[in-house]
Amino acid sequence: MEKKEEFMEAAFEQAREALAAGEVPVGCVFVYRDKVIARGRNSVNETHNATRHAEMNCVDGTLVWCRERGEDHCAVFRNVSVYVTVEPCGMCADALGQLGVSDLVFGCSNDRFGGCGSVVDVPKLYGHQYAIEKGVRAGDAVHLLKEFYKGENPNAPTDKAKRKT
Amino acid sequence: MEKKEEFMEAAFEQAREALAAGEVPVGCVFVYRDKVIARGRNSVNETHNATRHAEMNCVDGTLVWCRERGEDHCAVFRNVSVYVTVEPCGMCADALGQLGVSDLVFGCSNDRFGGCGSVVDVPKLYGHQYAIEKGVRAGDAVHLLKEFYKGENPNAPTDKAKRKT
Repeated sequence: MEKKEEFMEAAFEQAREALAAGEVPVGCVFVYRDKVIARGRNSVNETHNATRHAEMNCVDGTLVWCRERGEDHCAVFRNVSVYVTVEPCGMCADALGQLGVSDLVFGCSNDRFGGCGSVVDVPKLYGHQYAIEKGVRAGDAVHLLKEFYKGENPNAPTDKAKRKT
Repeated sequence: MEKKEEFMEAAFEQAREALAAGEVPVGCVFVYRDKVIARGRNSVNETHNATRHAEMNCVDGTLVWCRERGEDHCAVFRNVSVYVTVEPCGMCADALGQLGVSDLVFGCSNDRFGGCGSVVDVPKLYGHQYAIEKGVRAGDAVHLLKEFYKGENPNAPTDKAKRKT
C-alpha cells in the first residue's frame, strides 16, 4: 500500500471508531517523518465539547508524543502532514494554520461547515501556507457520514441535528 | 460598577495573569445568568499548544461548571455571554459559533489575526448568530499587548514572534 493510502486508512480507522461510539464519523492522523504520531476522532458528544474535533484531538496527541520524546513541538508541527477523512471546519482550518502544519490531505468536502473552500476558505483568507490535497477516498468518507445520519432521529429539530456536525 | 464593566474587568484580571506568566495577554470570562462561570487566559507557551487561547480554556471551564452542577451544557452555552479583552482569532470565532454562544463583547481589535471582522469576518461568513460588541476598554487591552511585546526579544525571527500571538 502506498504511504498516503496507509495514512488515510489510519484516519478511516478513527472515523469508524467515532461511528461506533455514536459520534459524527470523522477521523484524523498527524504524520511526522513518514510515521503516524497521533490519532484522533471526533469526540464532541462524549466530551460535551463542540470543539473536540478529530484534528484538535490529534493536536493533544502530538504534544504527548513530543513530550515523551523530548522533541521540539514547533519543529514537529511545522513538519506534520494532516490526514483527515472530512474537510476541516473553519475552527480547525485556522488552528492548523496557527500550528503551522506542513500540509493537509482530506477526504470529502463539507458543504455545511467546510473551512478549506467549501463554505469559507480560511487558509486563503488568513494566508496560511499549508498545502492542501482534497478528495482522497471522498466516497468512503461520505458513506460513513450517511451511515451516521441514517441512525439519527428523523424527528430531531433541524438545528439540533446541525449542531452535531 | 455596571455589570458589563465588572465582567470585562474579570477578563482583564485574566489577561494580566497571562502577562505575568509570560503569555500573550488575552483574558476571557464566560458569563451565564449574570454570573461568571468560567475564567480563562492564553496558555499557549505553557502548554506548547497554539490552540490554547483564552476562549478555548473558558470552554473547558464551562464544561466543568456544568458537570459539577448537572446543568445541560447545550442550554448553558446558548446563553453564555463571552467577554474577551482582544478580538477572537478565526479559530475561536468559529468555535464560539459552533458552541452557539449568545453574544460576544471584546476589547481591542486584532489587526493580524482577528476573526470578527479585522482580518476575516468568520461569524458573517458562517452565518453564526451571536451578537458582537467591540471596543470595550480597547485602550487598556492594547496597553497590555504593548507591555508584552516590549519584553520580547527584538532579535527573535519575525515568523517566530508572529507565532506567539
